[in-house]
This record gives sequence, structure tokens and C-alpha cells, in this order.
Amino acid sequence: MNQIERVALVGGTHGNELTGVYLIEKFQRFPHLIERSSFATLTLLANPKAFEAGRRYIEKDLNRCFLSAELQDPANGTYEELRAKAIARQLGPKGNAQVDMIIDLHSTTANMGLSLLLGNDRPQMLQLAAYLSQTNPRVRVCCPQASVEESPVLRSLSPLGLVVEVGPVAQGVLNAQLFQETENLIYAVLDYLEACNQGTFLPLPPTLTLYRYIADLDYPRTEQGKLNAMIHPQLQFKDYEPLHPGDPLFLTFDGKAIAYSGDSVVYPVFINEAAYYEKGIALRLTQKENRTISNRS
Amino acid sequence: MNQIERVALVGGTHGNELTGVYLIEKFQRFPHLIERSSFATLTLLANPKAFEAGRRYIEKDLNRCFLSAELQDPANGTYEELRAKAIARQLGPKGNAQVDMIIDLHSTTANMGLSLLLGNDRPQMLQLAAYLSQTNPRVRVCCPQASVEESPVLRSLSPLGLVVEVGPVAQGVLNAQLFQETENLIYAVLDYLEACNQGTFLPLPPTLTLYRYIADLDYPRTEQGKLNAMIHPQLQFKDYEPLHPGDPLFLTFDGKAIAYSGDSVVYPVFINEAAYYEKGIALRLTQKENRTISNRS
Repeated sequence: MNQIERVALVGGTHGNELTGVYLIEKFQRFPHLIERSSFATLTLLANPKAFEAGRRYIEKDLNRCFLSAELQDPANGTYEELRAKAIARQLGPKGNAQVDMIIDLHSTTANMGLSLLLGNDRPQMLQLAAYLSQTNPRVRVCCPQASVEESPVLRSLSPLGLVVEVGPVAQGVLNAQLFQETENLIYAVLDYLEACNQGTFLPLPPTLTLYRYIADLDYPRTEQGKLNAMIHPQLQFKDYEPLHPGDPLFLTFDGKAIAYSGDSVVYPVFINEAAYYEKGIALRLTQKENRTISNRS
Repeated sequence: MNQIERVALVGGTHGNELTGVYLIEKFQRFPHLIERSSFATLTLLANPKAFEAGRRYIEKDLNRCFLSAELQDPANGTYEELRAKAIARQLGPKGNAQVDMIIDLHSTTANMGLSLLLGNDRPQMLQLAAYLSQTNPRVRVCCPQASVEESPVLRSLSPLGLVVEVGPVAQGVLNAQLFQETENLIYAVLDYLEACNQGTFLPLPPTLTLYRYIADLDYPRTEQGKLNAMIHPQLQFKDYEPLHPGDPLFLTFDGKAIAYSGDSVVYPVFINEAAYYEKGIALRLTQKENRTISNRS
């Protein structure tokens, strides 16, 4: 990994995901916790107005406002679009960011444990993820397929952008255990970067399990677009567990099970995430992949 | 119990508590499920605009708008105040309600199981609660102290008003198991009332455990009123379990435990309910009471 000079810790990109909000507030009160000798650590509360309102966002999901074209469009003037432009001025621009790494702290109602959502599978990011996977058995690592279009999420301002997605925790709630686990994960990231900067390569496991997104599934809906089923009780909270063809996926309101009709085993994530009802996502399917972790150079 | 002629099932009093919303929608689609021969069952979606917005309320908590003076005040014109007036015209007025019983369906992020929140300890309500406590081991029964001021909640339109509070479930999420358990609880209520109307007294247990509210505790806060601590990990999801003097209650953001300083064992409920952060309630304390259940006359 190239020398890291500036790292940004971001919380409250969604105003009702309190773990990140209160961690950022803690780090602003006690900055020595995130100070390391070889780089600077910035903190940012991304959507303060949504936090004050106790909502995910005021007008538009901030974490979908970071496409370059959108950031440059002078017509974009909702609260979140203006916040995105301000954050891009502070941390970006894409391709020439002012920070070397962004860690964006999120939470989910799904049973995602401590999930690391990578933007790509660059060796440096896989090495970091592999290191972190040793620090807590609940760490899991998700990654898009090899080539994807430009991403609209905040972490995409930096090529080394990482989302930490912890759950299950309800919107508007602090879970102390998840708060502490997330806090320790951040310290592990910072310590790892400090060691890299100082030429001390911390030991890594030889392989890393990656969960690659392959598809999103929506809920069964009526012709009017209304929900017609729920996540099946047998699937609830079973993120990262294998889903076999024929396994129950949904339960209709009149009590009929709907099975998974794919033809291979998949690994669902974001099962029953509250914020995804409006996005038409009941769960995301992933494939599991074991990756060899290359040595650092 | 006097003859029951009309029962109102209410959901969506809080727009982001989906269990009740979708149960009401199911009953409206399949009305035979709630039809009984000896009484009429009405259904009501209480706050449709908040449901559409995915929020607890639009302007004001609807479930605090039912004080008689507020209902009669022509100056009260927020969306929820107008909804409350409309609902009171449909089901009320207090003291002379058009329905004999109201069952208002709520959900909570606390581990409340299937909680029945009674407005009073009238023998008829205790008998019903005792009957229901046999149908599912997760049924618990809460009740205010003997005399309280007039209540501002929707169920108070009827002297036989009952809140069903199920959890833990995140706001904006359907949990299929809780959905089905709540549905079965409603059928048990309707079957019980049908039997009473027909003079068939279903067997009751000899005693019922009541949890009586004694106090609300707020989170530790800074001088500016900001949160300074979280529910302690050892207390999270421990609703209805005994809390002893000296047991950990909160954990400050800098990692210090704060103990319960009372002088007797209490039983907390609504631990870490998302909607109560803004109300200044971290948990409610109750006392446990065993009540003998009188025979029906």
C-alpha cells in the first residue's frame, strides 16, 4: 500500500444509523483515540439535518448522490445533493481525492455482523479486510463483481473506500455491543495503516472469504406495487448462510411459503433491511469466493 | 363481561410499526378471518399518511392526542390532531364509545415478546389477559398503577382498551414470526369474546402476573441534553427480567458502566425503544405482582 497521509472517518451518512453518528461524536470529543503518528485522521458527520430529524435522509438518500455527473450538475439542489457537493469538496474529487482512505460507518436491521463493503478487490483492500477478519469472528467481506459502473455512494470518492455495515440493530437505536465492536474495528484499521506506513507488515491469513453480489431480489408485490409477502421466518437473520434451491424465501400474508427458485447455492445478505423496502430490495444474493491473499510489497 | 357488540382492531397508529398495518390490511382483504357470529369487528388504519411516509408520525405522535380536552380544542389542527378527532368521532367519545373494545396493534424495538398493555385492572380485562397468557408463553401483561390521570392514548377511547405491543422488531420492518403470533393472538381475543357472548366460559389460569409501571428512566445526558450513554450490553433485550440494585444499567461512550441505584428489585420494560429516545425514556421500570383471577359472572 502506498503511504497513507489522510484518512476520513464518516458517520451519519444516514441520519438514523446511530452507531456511526455517536462514534464520530466520541472521536471529536476524544481525538487522541484516532490520532496515529504517520497520518492524519479526519472526522465527518455527513448528514446532520437527517440525524436531528431522526430520519435516514431529508429529501434524498445522501448515499446515492455521489455520481460525478450529479455532483457537477448545478441544478441539483436538494439538501442531500448540496451536502454531497460539500463533502466532495472536502474529501474528493473522485480520481484526485484529498484523503487516501474513507471509512463510512453504517448500520442495518439485517444480521450482517461486522460487514466490510468494499468498492473493489484491489490487493490493498483485500489485505486490510483479511487483517480485520482476524480481529473479530463476526467480520464478513462483501465486494461487487469485477467491473461495475461508477458508484453513487460516498465511499466512492476514494479508491480506498470502505463501508462498515453493522447489525442487526434497529434504526434510531444504539446497541452498545455493536458500538464497541465497531469502535475496535476502527482502531484495528488505524493500527494496520500505521504499521504499513512504518514498514511493519502485520501477519495476514493466507485466504479471505469474499461475498460477491450477484443479484437483488424484491418482495412479491401486488399489481399496485404493495407488499404481498414477508421474509420467511426460516430466512430471517440468516445473512451469509447458504440458501439452497427450494429453500423458503418469502411467506405471503395468507401464509403460503415461496421458495428460492435459483439453480445453485447462494449466500443472502441485507435480509429484511428496513431502508430497502422503498428501494425494492428484500435481500441481496452473493456468491462465496475464497481468495488467496498476496504478500505485501 | 357485558355482551360485546362491536370490537375495533386498529393498526398503524404509528406509521412505521408495520406488523399492525399489514395485519389490518390482511383483515380488510379477508374479512371472514375476523368475523364472529355474536359481534361486529371493525378495522382501522389509524395514521395512513405516516405509513406512506415510513415514519412514526407526520407532525405529532398520534398516540398522545386523545385527551378529551385536546380532542375538543378547535385550535388543534395538526395532521395527527385532526386524525385523532376523526377517530374519536368513529370510535368514541370517551365514556360513551361506539365500540365495546379497542385492540391497538403496536411494535417495539425492545424485547417485549407479545405484551398486552392494559389501561386498567378491571376484572374483565384481567380475565382476558389471563386467557391469552395461556395461548403463547411470550405473552406478558403490563398495567398502570391503580389510579392515573386521563390517558392520551388511542385505546383510552374505550374502557376495554388494549394495546398489543410486540417485539423486538425494527421500525419499518415486518418480522413474519411476530406477525403470525400477533395474528393468532387477535384470533384468540375474538374467540374468547365470542365464547363470553355465548355464555361459554373458557378455562382460565388461577393467577396472572402483572407488571405495574413505577417509573421511567432517561439516558444519562450532557448539560446540552445530548446522549451520554447507551443501554448497558448486559441489559439489552432483558425486558421483564429482574434488575437488582447495583446491576449495570448504562454504558457511557467512554466505557464506564452506570449501575442501577434503586433499593429493590424491579422489572424493566421498553428497554432501548427507538421511539422513546426523543421522549427521554431509556426504559420503564415495573413491579411484578401476582393476581388471583376471579371467576366470571
